[in-house]
Amino acid sequence: MIRVLIFGATGYTGLELIRILSSHPEVIIAGGSSRQWQGQQASQALPFIRPDRDFPMVELEKLLANPQADLAFLALPHGESASLIRPLVKAGIKVIDLSADSRLHDPLVYEQWYGPHKDPAILSKVVYGLPEIHREEIRNASIVANPGCYPTTVILGLAPLVHRDDVDTSVAVVDSKSGVSGAGRGGKLGTSFCEIAESFAPYGVLNHRHIPEMEQELSQLKGQPVRVRFTPHLIPVTRGMVSTIYVPLKQEVTGETLRQACADHYRSEPFVKVLPGGTFPQTVHVRGSNMCHIAVEVDERTGWVVVMSALDNLVKGASGEAVQNMNIMMGLVETAGLTGFPLFP
Amino acid sequence: MIRVLIFGATGYTGLELIRILSSHPEVIIAGGSSRQWQGQQASQALPFIRPDRDFPMVELEKLLANPQADLAFLALPHGESASLIRPLVKAGIKVIDLSADSRLHDPLVYEQWYGPHKDPAILSKVVYGLPEIHREEIRNASIVANPGCYPTTVILGLAPLVHRDDVDTSVAVVDSKSGVSGAGRGGKLGTSFCEIAESFAPYGVLNHRHIPEMEQELSQLKGQPVRVRFTPHLIPVTRGMVSTIYVPLKQEVTGETLRQACADHYRSEPFVKVLPGGTFPQTVHVRGSNMCHIAVEVDERTGWVVVMSALDNLVKGASGEAVQNMNIMMGLVETAGLTGFPLFP
Amino acid sequence: MIRVLIFGATGYTGLELIRILSSHPEVIIAGGSSRQWQGQQASQALPFIRPDRDFPMVELEKLLANPQADLAFLALPHGESASLIRPLVKAGIKVIDLSADSRLHDPLVYEQWYGPHKDPAILSKVVYGLPEIHREEIRNASIVANPGCYPTTVILGLAPLVHRDDVDTSVAVVDSKSGVSGAGRGGKLGTSFCEIAESFAPYGVLNHRHIPEMEQELSQLKGQPVRVRFTPHLIPVTRGMVSTIYVPLKQEVTGETLRQACADHYRSEPFVKVLPGGTFPQTVHVRGSNMCHIAVEVDERTGWVVVMSALDNLVKGASGEAVQNMNIMMGLVETAGLTGFPLFP
Amino acid sequence: MIRVLIFGATGYTGLELIRILSSHPEVIIAGGSSRQWQGQQASQALPFIRPDRDFPMVELEKLLANPQADLAFLALPHGESASLIRPLVKAGIKVIDLSADSRLHDPLVYEQWYGPHKDPAILSKVVYGLPEIHREEIRNASIVANPGCYPTTVILGLAPLVHRDDVDTSVAVVDSKSGVSGAGRGGKLGTSFCEIAESFAPYGVLNHRHIPEMEQELSQLKGQPVRVRFTPHLIPVTRGMVSTIYVPLKQEVTGETLRQACADHYRSEPFVKVLPGGTFPQTVHVRGSNMCHIAVEVDERTGWVVVMSALDNLVKGASGEAVQNMNIMMGLVETAGLTGFPLFP
Repeated sequence: MIRVLIFGATGYTGLELIRILSSHPEVIIAGGSSRQWQGQQASQALPFIRPDRDFPMVELEKLLANPQADLAFLALPHGESASLIRPLVKAGIKVIDLSADSRLHDPLVYEQWYGPHKDPAILSKVVYGLPEIHREEIRNASIVANPGCYPTTVILGLAPLVHRDDVDTSVAVVDSKSGVSGAGRGGKLGTSFCEIAESFAPYGVLNHRHIPEMEQELSQLKGQPVRVRFTPHLIPVTRGMVSTIYVPLKQEVTGETLRQACADHYRSEPFVKVLPGGTFPQTVHVRGSNMCHIAVEVDERTGWVVVMSALDNLVKGASGEAVQNMNIMMGLVETAGLTGFPLFP
Repeated sequence: MIRVLIFGATGYTGLELIRILSSHPEVIIAGGSSRQWQGQQASQALPFIRPDRDFPMVELEKLLANPQADLAFLALPHGESASLIRPLVKAGIKVIDLSADSRLHDPLVYEQWYGPHKDPAILSKVVYGLPEIHREEIRNASIVANPGCYPTTVILGLAPLVHRDDVDTSVAVVDSKSGVSGAGRGGKLGTSFCEIAESFAPYGVLNHRHIPEMEQELSQLKGQPVRVRFTPHLIPVTRGMVSTIYVPLKQEVTGETLRQACADHYRSEPFVKVLPGGTFPQTVHVRGSNMCHIAVEVDERTGWVVVMSALDNLVKGASGEAVQNMNIMMGLVETAGLTGFPLFP
Repeated sequence: MIRVLIFGATGYTGLELIRILSSHPEVIIAGGSSRQWQGQQASQALPFIRPDRDFPMVELEKLLANPQADLAFLALPHGESASLIRPLVKAGIKVIDLSADSRLHDPLVYEQWYGPHKDPAILSKVVYGLPEIHREEIRNASIVANPGCYPTTVILGLAPLVHRDDVDTSVAVVDSKSGVSGAGRGGKLGTSFCEIAESFAPYGVLNHRHIPEMEQELSQLKGQPVRVRFTPHLIPVTRGMVSTIYVPLKQEVTGETLRQACADHYRSEPFVKVLPGGTFPQTVHVRGSNMCHIAVEVDERTGWVVVMSALDNLVKGASGEAVQNMNIMMGLVETAGLTGFPLFP
Repeated sequence: MIRVLIFGATGYTGLELIRILSSHPEVIIAGGSSRQWQGQQASQALPFIRPDRDFPMVELEKLLANPQADLAFLALPHGESASLIRPLVKAGIKVIDLSADSRLHDPLVYEQWYGPHKDPAILSKVVYGLPEIHREEIRNASIVANPGCYPTTVILGLAPLVHRDDVDTSVAVVDSKSGVSGAGRGGKLGTSFCEIAESFAPYGVLNHRHIPEMEQELSQLKGQPVRVRFTPHLIPVTRGMVSTIYVPLKQEVTGETLRQACADHYRSEPFVKVLPGGTFPQTVHVRGSNMCHIAVEVDERTGWVVVMSALDNLVKGASGEAVQNMNIMMGLVETAGLTGFPLFP
C-alpha cells in the first residue's frame, strides 16, 4: 500500500482527496494537517469518515517535521505550499502541489501575477501535471504541479487544434464558468449562500491568475505565443466548470472533421470524452467523476469554431487529477480509484 | 385608468405582467386568457392574487371575440401570436407582442429561422420595442414587438460602441447565460428541477433564434452588416441573464474612455446603468427590477473589449420592457409601475 | 412625509427595509448606519439604489448623536439594540426594534435565554408588534418589538385555535423550516454556499431562542401556560419560512370547521390568508410579499390537527411587519408600501 | 460474477442502481428496460456510462420474455411491478422490487391506500427489505420489497426505542422532508425548476401512501398498533431526506441514555450511525452514500423526545438499500459496492 499525506485536509480539495482515496484500492492516508482539527481524528471533523478510513490530523509543522509517507498532496491555499516542497523532497517524498505555487516555470511571470515566489529555484524542477500532455514527464517526476481547473478545461479543449492549419488558435476568446467550491472553503460574504444562490456574475475579468498558466502550456504546445482573452464567471452550483472557447477559422472545415480530430487525439485517454455533434457538455454529467467532456461546433455563417469543455472542478480540475498524477508517479494503474460514475442526478 | 388584456396570463411572462401591473397606478387588467383556468378568476389559479386585483380568465378565442380594452399583451408561445394581431388592431386595440412572431422585419429572414409566418404582411407595420433605440417610433405605434431577452442584453451592450472608430463591433463574440424561466412554464424533463439544479450547460449553440434579431438591430444601428457568434447557456437560477460580449479594438483606447462613452450614451435612460470600472453586473442586483446593468473593460494585453450586461429576463427582458412600452404608447410616465427595487437577497 | 432612520442599513433586514420603503408613498429614509460604508451614500454600497432614493450612511454613534427623524428602525444584531432605545425615545423618536432585545416582557425570562439585558427597565414599556394580536397597543406605542420570524408563523397559526374546546393547544409540536437569510448577512462557513446548497438539516433543536417568545404570546392569548416542542431546520433557499404545527384534538371536529374558524378570525386582516382545504402554503407564493398563508387539516385517523403557516422571513417575518407597525404607529394606511405581489417564480 | 437486470433503467432509481453497480466488484448489468431508449446501448441514453460498463436496453416485454440473470431489480413506477414478479421468480430469478407494489403484507390495507393489487396472493411471499430489521429473512428470500424512503428514516429512527418503557412510541408525530428526486424522473410542472427552486412546501398532508408501511413495520416491531401523524414536505434539493420524529416520554430519561441505547442497537450495522449529542444529521453528509445518520435529543422542559434521521433518498432510501439487499440475498459481502464516501460538498 502507498502511504500518502494530505497537507490541508479539511479544505475542499483536501476533503475531495479523502473522498476519492476512500475508494482507492492501494492507498492509505497516513495523516493530514489541519489547524482547526489538529490533535483529533479526521472522523471528528467530518461525521462521514468511516472508522476503517480514519487518520490523525496534526498541525502542518508537525506533519512536516517527521513525514512518514511515499507521497504528499499539498492542498493548501496559494502561497503556503512553496516552502514545503523542498523539505518533503529531501525526505524522499514525492510531492503533488494542488496550489498555484508551482505551475509557472518562469519565476518572472510568476512574480508578475502573484508577487515574489518563496523558492523560485524550485520551479525548474516541477512538471506540469496534466497527464494528457505531460504523462511521460510525470512518470519520473518528484514534484508535480497540479493544474488549475480553468487551464485544464482550456488546454484540453484546444490541444487537439493547436497544430491545425485551418484554425487560428492564437486568437482565443475564453468564457469560463465555475462552481463556487473553486473559491475554497471558508466564511466569506461573497460566497455566502444568500449572496450567491440565484445569482450569476463575471469576476476577475481579464486579469484572472489562471491566464499565464493557460498561455504557458498553449504556447509551448503550439510552439509560438498564444494569448487568451479570459473572463471567468461564478455559477450558483457547488461543483462544475464549463469553458466556452471561440477561435476563428483560417480555412473552411466542418464541425465533423474537427470533432473527429479531437476524438482521434483523445482516443486512448480514459478521462476525456468527445461528444457527438449537436450534444453539449453538462456539469452534472461529470459531477463527482474524473471525466472531461468536450464538444466542438463550427459556425459556418461566421467562420468560427466553438469548443466547449466541462469537468468537475474538484475532481478533474483538482483532486481527481492529483490522484491520476499520483497513480502515474507511483506506477499504479492510472485509473485506480477514479472509475466511479458521476453523481447524476 | 387604462384597461389591458393579457393573452396567455398564466405563463411566466403573463404572470410577471400581472405582478408588475399590481403596482401600476393607472392600469386595470380587464381580462386574461388561459386554457387551463378559463371560466375562473385569476386568484383561483394563483393564491397570491389580491381580491382587489382579481380578473376573469377566459378562453383565448372568447377574449379575442369581444375585446374591451385599450391595449393587449400577447404573452403566448411563439407562433401563436401572429394571427391575433390583425383582429385586435382592427378592434382599435394597441398590441404588444411578447412572442418572437413580430420581431423580424424581413419575412424571408423570419422564415429562415422560424418557418413560414402566418401573417407576413403585418411585419412591416411593427415597431421593434426597445425604447432605448426606438422610443419615438414606439410612441406612435399600434403594434410593438417586445424584444427577446438575449437581444436586449446584446443590443443595449453594444449600442454605445457601434459608431466608434476604435472598436470593431462587426466581429462580436457573444457568450450569454440565462435563467430557466426563459424556457417558459411547463413540464419538460429538460427543465425539471433534478436535471437543472447544480447543472450548467450550453444549448442551441450557434443557431439560437435570437441571432437574426440581434443582427437586424445592430446592423441597422451601425449602418452595415453585423454578425454575431452566439452561444447561450442555461444557469440554474429562475431569473437572470448575463451576456459577455467580446469585440476587438481597432485602436488603443482605455476602459475608462469607453465606460464614459457608455455612461454618456445612457445618461437620460431610467433603466440602464453603467457600472464603475472593476465592478461587474450581477443578476441578483437586477432581479425583479426593470434595470439593465452594463460594465465595460478593455484588455490591454490582447486589444479586446469585454462588455457585460445583466438583466432579469422576465422584467427588462420581457414583461417589464412590455410595461415600459405600454407606458410610452399610452402617454403615461415611462417609469410608472417600474420603480421598485430588485429583490435582494 | 415621514422621516425614518435605519440603524444597521446593510444587513438583510436593513436592506429589506430599504427595498420596501422604496415603494412607500409617504416615507423618506433620512439616514442609515453602517460600519463598513459610513461616510458614503447608500448607492455606493449597493448598485441597485436609485439616485432619488439615496441617503447618507454614517457611523451608528453619529446617527444616534443627532437623530432627525420621526421613527427609527433598529435592524441590528441581537444585543446591540437595547442601549439605543432610551436615547432615541428621549429625542422624541418612535422606535421599532427588529432585534430580539425587546420582545420578552419578563427580564428574568430574557436573562435565562439570552443573558443579562442591558436595560431591563425598558421591557415593560415595549409593545409586542404583531398587529394581528396587538394592533391597538401598537397604535399608541413609542417602542415596538418587532416579532421573530418563527414566532410570527406559530402565533398566527395557533391564535384562532387557542380558545376552542375541541383542540388542545397546550400540547404543540412545532416543526419549522427557515431560509438562510434568517441567519443574517455575513461570512460564516456554516452559511456559505457550498455547505448549504443541496443541504437540509435541523439546528438549535429544542433550545432555540424564539421559544420563550412563542410561549409568552400563546400563554397570554390562551390565559394559561402553553409550552412548545420546537425544532427549527435550515432550508437551502434565501427567503421563506414554513411552520408545521401539530396539536391533538380533544373532541371530534372537521378540518372544514377549523378552516372556517381561522378564516373568520382573519377575515379583516389584509396580510393573512387561510387557504382552502387540500391546498398548502408554499414559500414562493409569499416571497417578497407581506402575506402569511395558513392551512389547516385534521387527521381523523389519529385525532390531531396540523396547522401550516408560511411567510417570507424578511418581510412578514421582519421588515414588512416592521413597516406595517410603522404605518400603524404613524397613523398611515396600514397597507401602504406593502401591497406588491410576491416574486413568483 | 452475478448477472442482474434493471427493469426501468433510466428513471432515477434505475440510474442510481447503474451508478452504484459501476463500482461493485462482483456484478454485471446484463440488460435494462427502457421504453424511450430500447434498441440502444445505455451509453447512448446517458453520456457518462463508460464503455466497459455498457449494456443493452430493450423493451420491458422483451426483457421479461427471456431473462438471463440471477437477480432483477424492478425500478418501475408504482403499479407496474406487481405483474412482473411471478414470471421472474418462475424463471428462477430473485426479485428486488423498488416500487411500492409489494411492501404491504395485507392486501386489504394495500387496496385501501393504493387500489386493487394486481397479484395479491404474492404479498404473503414477500420479505420487507430493511436489512437492519429483517436481515435473516432477506437472506433466504426470493422476493424482497425494497422499503420506501420515508419509512426507512422513520423505522430506523424509532426501532431502538419501541420496546423502552420510558418512551411512548405509540404517539409519533413525524415531520419529513424530501429532495425532489423522490418524485421520480419526468416532466411535470410541479417539479419543474422554476416552481421548486427557492420553494418549500408541505404536500400529501396526513394521507401520504408511505403511512401504512411505517405503521405495519412499527406495529410489528412493537407488538401493538402504532399510528403516525405524518406530514411530508418537498425541499429544493435533488437528493436528501430528513425525518424529525417527536414522541412523548412516559418517564424521565436523559438524551445521553437514549443516544447510548440507539448506538448500542446499531453497533454492528455498517450503514447506520448515531451522532453525538448536540450534533444533527445533514443531508449533504450522506449524499451519494448508503448511510443513515440518526440523532436523538430529549426536551426536558416538555418531556418529549426528538429523533432526527437523514439519508439520501436515492441510496439508503432506494437503490443503495436495494444493492445491500442484493448482497445479502446473493451471499456477497453486505457492504460490497457501498463503501464510497458521500459527495461533500
